[in-house]
This record gives sequence, C-alpha cells and structure tokens, in this order.
Amino acid sequence: MTPTVYIADIAKYPGKEVTLQGWVYNKTHKGKLQFIMLRDGTGIIQAVLFKDDVGDAVFESCLNLTQESSVRITGSVTEDKRAKGGFELQAKKVDILQIAPEYPISPKEHGIDFLMEHRHLWLRSSLQHAIIKVRHEVIRACRDYFDNLGFTLIDAPIFTPAACEGTTTLFETNYFDSKAYLTQSGQLYMEAAAMAFGKVYCFGPTFRAEKSKTRRHLTEFWMIEPEVAYCDLPCVMDLAEGLIVSIVERVLERKKEELLLLERDLAPLERVQKPFPKITYDQAVELLKKADAAFTFGSDFGAPDETIISQAFDRPVMVTHYPAEVKAFYMKRDPAQPDRALGVDVLASEGYGEIIGGGQREDDLQSLLDRIEAHKLPAEAFNWYIDLRKFGSVPHAGFGLGIERTISWICGLQHIRETIPFPRTISRIYP
Amino acid sequence: MTPTVYIADIAKYPGKEVTLQGWVYNKTHKGKLQFIMLRDGTGIIQAVLFKDDVGDAVFESCLNLTQESSVRITGSVTEDKRAKGGFELQAKKVDILQIAPEYPISPKEHGIDFLMEHRHLWLRSSLQHAIIKVRHEVIRACRDYFDNLGFTLIDAPIFTPAACEGTTTLFETNYFDSKAYLTQSGQLYMEAAAMAFGKVYCFGPTFRAEKSKTRRHLTEFWMIEPEVAYCDLPCVMDLAEGLIVSIVERVLERKKEELLLLERDLAPLERVQKPFPKITYDQAVELLKKADAAFTFGSDFGAPDETIISQAFDRPVMVTHYPAEVKAFYMKRDPAQPDRALGVDVLASEGYGEIIGGGQREDDLQSLLDRIEAHKLPAEAFNWYIDLRKFGSVPHAGFGLGIERTISWICGLQHIRETIPFPRTISRIYP
Repeated sequence: MTPTVYIADIAKYPGKEVTLQGWVYNKTHKGKLQFIMLRDGTGIIQAVLFKDDVGDAVFESCLNLTQESSVRITGSVTEDKRAKGGFELQAKKVDILQIAPEYPISPKEHGIDFLMEHRHLWLRSSLQHAIIKVRHEVIRACRDYFDNLGFTLIDAPIFTPAACEGTTTLFETNYFDSKAYLTQSGQLYMEAAAMAFGKVYCFGPTFRAEKSKTRRHLTEFWMIEPEVAYCDLPCVMDLAEGLIVSIVERVLERKKEELLLLERDLAPLERVQKPFPKITYDQAVELLKKADAAFTFGSDFGAPDETIISQAFDRPVMVTHYPAEVKAFYMKRDPAQPDRALGVDVLASEGYGEIIGGGQREDDLQSLLDRIEAHKLPAEAFNWYIDLRKFGSVPHAGFGLGIERTISWICGLQHIRETIPFPRTISRIYP
Repeated sequence: MTPTVYIADIAKYPGKEVTLQGWVYNKTHKGKLQFIMLRDGTGIIQAVLFKDDVGDAVFESCLNLTQESSVRITGSVTEDKRAKGGFELQAKKVDILQIAPEYPISPKEHGIDFLMEHRHLWLRSSLQHAIIKVRHEVIRACRDYFDNLGFTLIDAPIFTPAACEGTTTLFETNYFDSKAYLTQSGQLYMEAAAMAFGKVYCFGPTFRAEKSKTRRHLTEFWMIEPEVAYCDLPCVMDLAEGLIVSIVERVLERKKEELLLLERDLAPLERVQKPFPKITYDQAVELLKKADAAFTFGSDFGAPDETIISQAFDRPVMVTHYPAEVKAFYMKRDPAQPDRALGVDVLASEGYGEIIGGGQREDDLQSLLDRIEAHKLPAEAFNWYIDLRKFGSVPHAGFGLGIERTISWICGLQHIRETIPFPRTISRIYP
C-alpha cells in the first residue's frame, strides 16, 4: 500500500511512491505540464503533473485548482538537486478535496489591519509560519533549560484576589458573587513555591490592561518566571544570562532556516555569549546623557531610553541598582545604598529593550510590612505572602522573561504582534 | 571551598564536606545529640549535631529550632544504609537564618478549608510535594509526546470574542470599551492552526464558570489540545491512546517513588497498555442498564454513569458515537447514522471518568452553517472559523485532555483540587 507521508519526511522515500496531503501554495502550467507547489504544514514540495501520467480528466480538473485548494497527490519521489528540499513528486493520481474561492491574502501588499483580521489564514504564509516555529523552539528551550537544572514547574493561578503591581492595569472579571483579577505575574506564587521546592518556574499567559499602543505591548502575553530560594542578585543574574544564551543557541542550532527566511542577520545573535555586560542604573544614565536623551535621573527608563542603552553593547546588557522608588514593593533594597533596589533588567541587543525583569526579593518581615503599607496595598490579600517571611524566610530571587519580546528580538521583527499565534491588543480580540 | 549543594545531589559527595540550605522538617534530640530532618525542596536528609562537634553555643541555639525554621548546615556526608536516601550529614557548622513561629500545619488532622487557606504552606508537605512532582512529569510527557511526533505548539488566546460551547459557563471581563470572554477551549483556534501547520497542539489554562461543586471541577484548569489536518475519528483515537499510554509509562518510570509515597496501587497503571477497549455509546448504555443505573437513553453521561462504565474495564475505555444532540455544534456526524457524532470520550479506569473529549470536526461548509444557526450562535463571531471550510477544507480531528483529571487519576486522589498548585473553585481564589 502506498504510504501517506508528510513532506518533512520525504527524504526517507527516494524513488518510492507516496501520497501527500495538503494545500496548493502556488501553481503554474505549460502545455501538458502543471507544476503544483504543495504545502502540508511541515514543508513545501513541487508536484509535477504530466498529462499522459494523470490522464486527461484529472489534468483538466487540476487546471481549476486555486491557491489553498485542498488536494491529495500520489506519485513517486524523485531527487532533484535544483528543488528546494532536494525532491519533487512525479504525480500519478490527484484527489481534489475542495476548490477554494479567491484567497484573500495575495502576494500584493495588505494593510496590517487586514492581515490581523485574517490571522487565521495569515498563519499559512511562510514568514508567519517561520516566526511561530521559532516561538515553539524558544518555549522548548526555556522549559528544557529549567527542567535540566532541576527546577519544578509550578503553574501559577490566572485568577487572583489582588494586584501584584498596582490595580490600574488589571483586567477584572466577575467571579460568581465576587470579583477576581487576571494575573499580571506569577511571581508571588513562585515565591511560595520556591520555599516548598527550592527552585521553581511557571510558564503561562499574563495580562495587562495597558492602554499603550506600542510595538512592544500585547494585553495577553506569555512569561516564564523562575524563582530560587537561597539565591541573591548575582545568583539570579547568572541564571538569566544562562537562559538567554541557551535560548539563542538553540534557535540558531535548530531554526536557522526560519531565521534566514525572515532575513535575520545572524551575526548579532551569534555574539550572544557569556559574559553579558553588567552596568548599574547610574552608568546607564551616563549613556543617556552622552546621547543627549531627555531623561530625568530617578525615573524608570522608557522604550526610547532602553533602545539607546542597548545599542551601546554588542549583546544583551544587564542593568542593576535602579532607584527603589521605580521598582515594585517586593524588591529587596541594597543594604549598601538603601535607595537602590537589588533588581536587574536585561535589555536585548540591537535596540530591542527589556526582555527580563527581576531581582532579589525582600525577605525581612518588617520591611515587607512597611512597604505594603507605604504602597497602600490591601494587606489582608497579602496575608499568605507575608506568611512566607514568618515561616523560614530565606534570601530568594527570581525574574520574568517575556516570551513575545524575546521572539521579536530573535526574529528581528518590527512589531511584537506577529510573535504570538492570535495576538490580543487594546483594539483587537478577533479572530 | 565547601560547595553548597542540593540534597538531591548528595550521593555525589560521599565523605566530602558540603553546605546544605533548607528548612527544618522535623527534629529530635537526646543528650549531646540533635537530629534535624532537613528539607530543601529537592530532598530530605538527616543532619546529626553532636555537641562536641558544633560547640556549646550553636548546640544550645539549635535547641530552639522549630518546624520550618530556615538553616544552613555544613558537615560531612556519610553513607548510612538505614537512612532514607542512603546518606546523612555529620554537622560541623549551623547557621540559623530564622526561627519560625509555631507552624500552622501539624501532623494532626486539619479540615480541607484550613489546608486550602494555607495552600502556600501546605505545598511543603510531602504528599502535596509528590503530587506536584507527578504533575510536572505529566506535563513534560504530554509536550514531549507531541513534540516528538512533529506537532507545532500554537498557544491559543485566552481572551475570546465568543463562546465555543455555550455562554452560560463563561467568565466575562471588561475589555477596554467592550467585553471579552475567557477561553473554554483552544480547539477552534487549533483548527485554524492545523490548516497552517498540519499537526498542532495548544497547552494552557482554560476556564469554566460552572456552579457545580464536585470533586472533578475546577474553574481554572489546564488542557492540552492537539488538532490534526487530514485525520479522522480512528486516527485521532490512535493519537489519544498513544498519549495516555505514554504519560502513564513516563510517570511510572520517573516518578514511581512519588506514587508509592501517595500509596498509589501501581497494578492498574501498569495495565494501561494498548489496545484500549473501544465501545459505542449504545454499548455503554447497555452497561448502565445491567448495573440498574437510572439513565435516559439519548442523554449525556453524568459522573456516576462514567464511574460505572469505566469500572467495567481494566484500563481506560474509549466511547464513541454519542447522540449528536448532546455534543457540540462543530462535531462531524457519522454519515452512516446521521444522529450520531464522530466523537470520542476517553474514560480513565478505576471509576475516574472522562479525561479526554474529542473527535472529528464538521468540514462541510453548509452543514456547519446550518449547525451554527440551529445552535443560535452569533454567526459573525464565527466568520473566521467558517473561513476554514471555504479555503481548503479537509477532514480533521482533535481532542482535549484535562491535565488535572489525568493527574487525579494517576495519583489516585479523591479530589481534583490537590492536582494544581493553587486551585480555583467556585468558592476559592485565595491564596
């Protein structure tokens, strides 16, 4: 019996007869020959239809095939050095499942709104396909990195009773007779879990109702958040550096073809090696001054500031010791300079800006209580979190890596919206 | 320098001096000796403090150590056949980080509400620890299964514009100037992605605002949902069978110690081998009749029905050909008996009930349009989904596996709430 196979596996069947199932990606014909570029999601191959081989009736009906029509083609696999992938299919039999009407996405230019509205079809395009393949590899690399280091996966809850970083950017939902908020970060839960499992990570969607319409913002985005007990700022910086190196190495190793299709310059990625430059907030501010940026000392960096800072280095840069005021209530302060937080942001190279934020957490009970009060946070919602500083408090640290920003940087994209299969922005939840 | 190591790695350091960092799990003393059971999240080891070795002052202060106090202990690793894990630590130095107040969770019985309220601490208990370790392995096994088969990971969106299976059990959220619903299933999006990538899966949290307070329901639970283009009901049943066998095999191989700690009878798990029994809805109804169950032919199975059906077999059972009326609008009907759906539910053995629901999808445009109208669904919200039947529609199938129900079954638990780090139920979103 003729085996039904995927195009990705075609090299296993040279000279053999196989059946392929897929969609017409492109088509040309010339006299007694038709050339169908067939895609099946795992690859693209050219099927050659010779009228005398397939018969007049099949040949005629295949002239009606349009882009994205669905077909099964049986034929023999022949090596062809000129063909992409090295093989083509000499068709013997064609089974048409459906002739598609005119496909809305053509090679001509489309506006971004049109493409986003047709995201369910746009995903079939080769560039979008490549980005999503890179995304899958980035996610596998993240999980493998932590799994191999003996971390335990702890899925953080999505419904939370309170805000971790302020309430203005929270999505609120009715929760039976009360209210719940969609998580902005699993960190607080990871702190609890780190005290139970030593080293943990969560990986899941997080939500911010930010009204900012920028190329770096999605309302729904994925984060991987490790947290380690008995770990301080230098320890967690090592972990972050190792993660980024490991992700980039893996994508270069397994998804080079996709990066080349995206016309990504590989040189900057190949430079992503340890050690990363490590600078303080003050040193970063010096860089902004030199670049004549309008920046007020003491404030947080905006996207344009991050661009300037990251462009000063040939690989990701780690910035530490931000003013405590601009960082979250749970950050531990530097005992040597109490107005500074023991936090670290990692800015991706080539102007891509922040992909990691993290640091050492406040482990002293009274300092944490003071901070919760100063930030006017609802203390009773944090009772469980405060418990962690009563029952065996230890130094601990962690960070969050934004998956979409990382993919955007690795793929060299202009906008974050193409890094996730179905992007959600301030103005879009369809399809 | 003395290396700081994890208890899990202790066997690499026989006779060596190491520093361990963790929490006091238990403690006894006798004259000039104290025995501290130390846990660090990766394991538990006994540290022996001999007064003459650690000195009087340290020995005295260690008498104050309570359960869950945090300590660093330096000492030499000695083999001890009687000890769990085969090693103990002869302490030389003890560094107390914090003495914990009386720990709320004691070996005495606690009510479930109390334990749930202290979930952030309860996770430190050995049984909860074991369940979460099994969870991590189940999730890894799922991802590896699909990754090894060449599936592409496609994260489904959480915010959706419309309901996939009715609106009564949806969580609604304000989305800037409009409304969004939290996803109940990524399936429809996976159908779009399968047409782009051939074989895909999503893995993420899903939400149901069901008011049912049962041992099988959470409001927030994780699902893995594969979808395959050019796949029919038998094809997707093979895939489901393979997945379950692969998960159970992996947990038996890598997490046997945890299962034994949970006092799980391994025999029923070891029987989870291909082929699974496959019966039709009608045959399942016969089983219910024989058991004198009160059941009306034509309705869906309730939890007690599933228990009866699954107890009739020594491994998971696959039930197909349900009445189309009780299944979702997108299910393809059996051409041979149009009142039946080409769907399959997999019921776990030992009375655990449904862990998988899936089947072949309707791929005919007109049939789907009729079904959307009959179900009074908002057609414009499904425009993109309908597009999939216009542009190269192909037979396709998929399913969803509930992670928590699967863990509950594998661990042999009474209730699903312990299978997730921070369970969300109708009455609980804290901590």
